[in-house]
Amino acid sequence: MTIDTKILSALRGAGTNGVAGTELSQKLGISRAAIWARIEELRSLGYEIEASPHLGYRLLSVPDVLHADDLLSSLGNTKVVGRDIQVFEETTSTNDVVEKLARDGVKEGAVVFAESQTKGRGRLGRKWISPARKGLWFSVLLRPPLSPLAVTQLTIAAATALFRAIKSQTGITPEIKWPNDILIRGKKTAGILTELSAEPDKVKHVILGMGVDVNLGAGEFPVELRKLATSLRIETGQRQNRAELAVKILQELDRDYDRICSGQFEALADEWEEYCSTIGQRVTIRVGERKIQGTAESLDTDGALLLRTQHGHLERIIGGDVTVEK
Amino acid sequence: MTIDTKILSALRGAGTNGVAGTELSQKLGISRAAIWARIEELRSLGYEIEASPHLGYRLLSVPDVLHADDLLSSLGNTKVVGRDIQVFEETTSTNDVVEKLARDGVKEGAVVFAESQTKGRGRLGRKWISPARKGLWFSVLLRPPLSPLAVTQLTIAAATALFRAIKSQTGITPEIKWPNDILIRGKKTAGILTELSAEPDKVKHVILGMGVDVNLGAGEFPVELRKLATSLRIETGQRQNRAELAVKILQELDRDYDRICSGQFEALADEWEEYCSTIGQRVTIRVGERKIQGTAESLDTDGALLLRTQHGHLERIIGGDVTVEK
Repeated sequence: MTIDTKILSALRGAGTNGVAGTELSQKLGISRAAIWARIEELRSLGYEIEASPHLGYRLLSVPDVLHADDLLSSLGNTKVVGRDIQVFEETTSTNDVVEKLARDGVKEGAVVFAESQTKGRGRLGRKWISPARKGLWFSVLLRPPLSPLAVTQLTIAAATALFRAIKSQTGITPEIKWPNDILIRGKKTAGILTELSAEPDKVKHVILGMGVDVNLGAGEFPVELRKLATSLRIETGQRQNRAELAVKILQELDRDYDRICSGQFEALADEWEEYCSTIGQRVTIRVGERKIQGTAESLDTDGALLLRTQHGHLERIIGGDVTVEK
Repeated sequence: MTIDTKILSALRGAGTNGVAGTELSQKLGISRAAIWARIEELRSLGYEIEASPHLGYRLLSVPDVLHADDLLSSLGNTKVVGRDIQVFEETTSTNDVVEKLARDGVKEGAVVFAESQTKGRGRLGRKWISPARKGLWFSVLLRPPLSPLAVTQLTIAAATALFRAIKSQTGITPEIKWPNDILIRGKKTAGILTELSAEPDKVKHVILGMGVDVNLGAGEFPVELRKLATSLRIETGQRQNRAELAVKILQELDRDYDRICSGQFEALADEWEEYCSTIGQRVTIRVGERKIQGTAESLDTDGALLLRTQHGHLERIIGGDVTVEK
């Protein structure tokens, strides 16, 4: 933890009571002058911190920026996810940044956010728009003890984490569209890009990229997406706190990742099936050039979708584009 | 093709007849003086090229170095493998070099050789010794239209290519030990390291790394490997031409890769099964912490090994360490 993380953590812990400069100074083992300098720095970043003679320092509001120390301070103790957090003003794609970290041997759990991406991407190289400070564009590095076959389990974990975090933050119940979309009232509001590096029988690392359209206005979507995509702000009618949502997603993901690593994927899959609007539907799935029709029945033990075809047999499907038949 | 490639190709085509300087000059569209300068350069690299007034230029011998232009000139027209060849005097690991090329968008078929590797590796991060000019240490970039599930097909292709090339070059019939070793008289003489980068349902690229112990003497293996590993030179009693072997391997791999891409994996699998000493044996396979016993029956359609367990059911195995029961 950096000094800023510790100060923000103490301010959050004290709430409206505030915390005295002397107390902070003792707790952190640095001079009151040094504390004052850091408080000034935080203020310059947009944190509203009141300093009063008898209440000490009080945190009144936080700015709508992603601040690595602040995210770490709010996150608390997670097992893996968010051990290290970095925030970039702009990157090409956070998945690319994390890929480089992975190759440099960085430990799993590292998370990279970008306020904007110049080359954000979705599945199969599709473009993902990521305007500055309007959403959450981030990637998580994981090194799971899985075979490449079972990596879909992590997409399932990410979708479940996004579902729960969005629901608890906004009160709206979204739906999961297999394999990697979160919809609200039928429109896409978040997506997941899972990328892996592996030997045929062993994963080296997985990068879970997530994009959440938080505070975009309707006009900020490209015209061709307006009927297909939405944001939490459009759906709730109010701006959402991105940092709070980010912290919730990481906490939920940490919990789900722990379930996968401790062999409890089945419980996670059951929860996912409850949230997933694709299950039980008659669907057409395009996998490359192939079209498969049938009823989405459930998840297989490794995260693949089990589709009951017209001919009555079960097909395992790892990825594809789903159209629900009306 | 560079000028050197064209010159070497013409010299090879002419054989003992030789080719006149004027002919070369016309064919290549450059001056006789320029041809002469390139011939001098090739000689400085160790190529023995005779220049006689009435026979013109004749290629008498080539040095025991890997030379990208020369390999390209010998390779002839392959469909994919060897479109581009680079040779490094020393790298960490050729798989790492190709990984960087892949991320820079280089086309499939690129091959990187190193005369020596400082961090050569085998499966699961194991060390692979790669002394200078004693073997073939190289990696091939492929972008196959496969799901990550089916990437084992490429290890099968590489093993089959190594088998055929070694057999045709040395006259010795090696054996394939599933999943990725080539043995001669029970000792390892070549290995394959397959690494992939993917989304859960689609491969982005695969790197096939291969190491062949060609001209190592017994004393050049670490003591602990001497009972387990051998070289083509030890087994045949004579030094082998590394460039010729390299070209044969790439040609064979090109052929097998084409079979996979055109949906003929089954024919390849049949051939592989013939060469594989693991098939039909009672084996113990360690997969991580797990030990599975049974009889290796055949290959599944995606390249996985089908093992008939003691309890009579078939297990699909993607990778592991095999011990044959005596």
